[in-house]
Amino acid sequence: MKSLFLTLSICITVLSYGKEGQPNDDSIFVRMIFDEALENGEAYENLRSLCKDVGARITGSAEAKMAVKWGKKVLESYEFDKVYLQEIEVPHWERGTTESCWIENEQGDVAKMHVLALGGSVGTNGLMEGEVVMVNSIEEMNELGKEEIKGKIVFFNKAFDQKLLQTFRAYGACIAQRHIGANEAGKLEAKAVVIRSLASSTDEHPHTGSTRYEEGVDSIPAAAISTVDADILAEWVSKGKVMLKLEMDCRHYENEISHNVIAEMTGNQDNKIITFGGHLDSWDVGEGAHDDGAGVVHSIEALRILKKLGYQPKHTLRCVLFMNEENGNFGGKNYARIAHEKGEEHICAIESDRGGFLPIGFDVWGTDKQVQMVMQYADMMEDFQLYKFKPGYSGVDIRPLKEYYPDMIQLGMAISSQRYFDYHHSAADVFENVNKRELHLGAAAMAAIIYLMDKTL
Amino acid sequence: MKSLFLTLSICITVLSYGKEGQPNDDSIFVRMIFDEALENGEAYENLRSLCKDVGARITGSAEAKMAVKWGKKVLESYEFDKVYLQEIEVPHWERGTTESCWIENEQGDVAKMHVLALGGSVGTNGLMEGEVVMVNSIEEMNELGKEEIKGKIVFFNKAFDQKLLQTFRAYGACIAQRHIGANEAGKLEAKAVVIRSLASSTDEHPHTGSTRYEEGVDSIPAAAISTVDADILAEWVSKGKVMLKLEMDCRHYENEISHNVIAEMTGNQDNKIITFGGHLDSWDVGEGAHDDGAGVVHSIEALRILKKLGYQPKHTLRCVLFMNEENGNFGGKNYARIAHEKGEEHICAIESDRGGFLPIGFDVWGTDKQVQMVMQYADMMEDFQLYKFKPGYSGVDIRPLKEYYPDMIQLGMAISSQRYFDYHHSAADVFENVNKRELHLGAAAMAAIIYLMDKTL
Repeated sequence: MKSLFLTLSICITVLSYGKEGQPNDDSIFVRMIFDEALENGEAYENLRSLCKDVGARITGSAEAKMAVKWGKKVLESYEFDKVYLQEIEVPHWERGTTESCWIENEQGDVAKMHVLALGGSVGTNGLMEGEVVMVNSIEEMNELGKEEIKGKIVFFNKAFDQKLLQTFRAYGACIAQRHIGANEAGKLEAKAVVIRSLASSTDEHPHTGSTRYEEGVDSIPAAAISTVDADILAEWVSKGKVMLKLEMDCRHYENEISHNVIAEMTGNQDNKIITFGGHLDSWDVGEGAHDDGAGVVHSIEALRILKKLGYQPKHTLRCVLFMNEENGNFGGKNYARIAHEKGEEHICAIESDRGGFLPIGFDVWGTDKQVQMVMQYADMMEDFQLYKFKPGYSGVDIRPLKEYYPDMIQLGMAISSQRYFDYHHSAADVFENVNKRELHLGAAAMAAIIYLMDKTL
Repeated sequence: MKSLFLTLSICITVLSYGKEGQPNDDSIFVRMIFDEALENGEAYENLRSLCKDVGARITGSAEAKMAVKWGKKVLESYEFDKVYLQEIEVPHWERGTTESCWIENEQGDVAKMHVLALGGSVGTNGLMEGEVVMVNSIEEMNELGKEEIKGKIVFFNKAFDQKLLQTFRAYGACIAQRHIGANEAGKLEAKAVVIRSLASSTDEHPHTGSTRYEEGVDSIPAAAISTVDADILAEWVSKGKVMLKLEMDCRHYENEISHNVIAEMTGNQDNKIITFGGHLDSWDVGEGAHDDGAGVVHSIEALRILKKLGYQPKHTLRCVLFMNEENGNFGGKNYARIAHEKGEEHICAIESDRGGFLPIGFDVWGTDKQVQMVMQYADMMEDFQLYKFKPGYSGVDIRPLKEYYPDMIQLGMAISSQRYFDYHHSAADVFENVNKRELHLGAAAMAAIIYLMDKTL
């Protein structure tokens, strides 16, 4: 009687899951995934450990080395079929110990700027001073020309367009000032560059991120100031001459050896590979909780859940914790190159690198047919409050795979981005700003899409 | 040339808003609503003021009186066609100054419980002590019967079902222990009731909320302990006899006169009314930021935006800041009764009372035809990341209207509920836990649905 009762209970429970009409095997299994994530999820505690026991972990740092050990240890604890490291060479840049910035106007008023060197910036070699020239774009700076820029400190003040519902678009519209602002200003012989932080919030947190120099252009220091400070500086500049003082001792070191951290469940049908992951490195401020601790624990948890539920994959499911997404992407580039060199057959890749906020669906990078293949599950996924299944971008780490495997399908987990750029690349990106249920829903969404792709491909 | 250029720019901008094919007037106007909310929104600063200048504002308190003044002043500042107060009689209960709870086992170990009296509870009249009987439901308590319950303190320990994606369902499944637990335990002559907080998070914040007594049943004290403390108490009880000590001096006072706060834009076609709002009162801990400061500022902001954009409504748009949703709903009940007595014609009501988190759509309470009427806009609203348009519930404040106007359509703003019950009715429900962009998206969604209903009805 007991087993009949159990069977009946399970049937009733399972039947009640279907939105309309009968549930199918997929919706039953996906429900089991969500149940496991929400009731017994380990992603949140794994993230706490990554954030608190390891902390910020920029490529090349001692903490990045620790993060590799951490990732391998956690993956080994789940006893997956394989856990191993993939050696790669990575850059090594350090912020140093001095970072100061303040401004002074002609009346002798002074104001401190909350500042972070941009990743990859050269140092100032002592206290540097220059008159501020404010512009909203590289084009505007170039129109002023070398006579106006030479010897000055260029202040790029382009702000987020708050009207854009997709905040990644607002970020994209501002990224040139961070990524190539210093390089372009260097061509006009500016002394240094400060930028308005690429942030959606108005507060005193500066947000760092990578900047790059072309060979043959003099490298000049580059730093981000907080949005509140950018408003102050803009107001001062609008009223008269402003001098800016900047001191930073950040610098590059020799390249280091580091690792991608990999775990696999072996496929029982063929040697084809489905890769999924996030990046293990972060910037060197905050704790890299949303960027991309969330993606790391989403990916680990997805594999844990599939194993726990006894799922036998057709294809090999490979969880990759990529190193060095933030300043070089040598983890992603080398992963793709090595895969190709080994003659591996990659059919699908999935990335979570948009934070630990509420998942809303998946962006699909592939042919129309591949997009349709994913969209057949859209109705079913509505039961799990995943609504967005559209053509779109995947992720920085997995993108290089597409160069070697142009026919593969790639997916990026779509996550509500409204809060992301309040924290991104700043000291505010800490564990406390991640919500447990939202994080666990992300892990479940990742496990569900891996399952559906494995079944369908 | 300049005006031609401007016209062209606007056309290009507007055309780019359409998801597929041509945008129509509705999508253009809704885009203007979102632009205004995201770029010039005032909801966040209004919420800061309500939370910080007024604070917690339980019905009958000095702060509730202040909140009425605050609401009227803010609405008057926007120069709507009408701003007025609607007098209502409301209950007045106060927490008092003493709230202490601790437990002791047979080994003499003691542990402090973080506690909040449930709203409406009687006090303990000094320090009360009783042996703890733990149950998971009223049914389980009733099965034990009077012989096991009499003279004891009943601990209701039913926890949130974390597996439910809709956390309001998890809340609903536990609400009996808070709402009628003390009343039912009183029938069995228990000394008092403590409940596990109705919360999704595991932390040390107790969550209050209303409890009620039937006439003729002895009223016994009722309090909520935090989820962390509930786990501790449950563990102790599983090991042996546990005594619980409780002291609370909360009590009821005479009813008070209070007010709903109302603003209107007059319709230019008829006297039909579209009501929308949230509730101005809150519990007496935290700042009532999500519950329901968010609904208050969503509603004020929706009317501000429609006025700012020069919208001329067909029907009268009436923003109502309801008093006393939390412990009696006398604001909502009296609003409906007075509307009926005045012979007003109410065609639609919309409520925001699910927090200031990410809006995801609207639940529609009406006939199939009314649901279809709303769903015609679902495709268009996807551009604004609103995906959920389904039959469902509206809100506590506007529900009584439906009794007098059964043919009206009601809508509840659907808001991602994953974080709501971490904060709900607790000291953690403060302004700092509200995100500006998410709040402003809610205000825009409210303005958009008011516009669409006004146009369509």
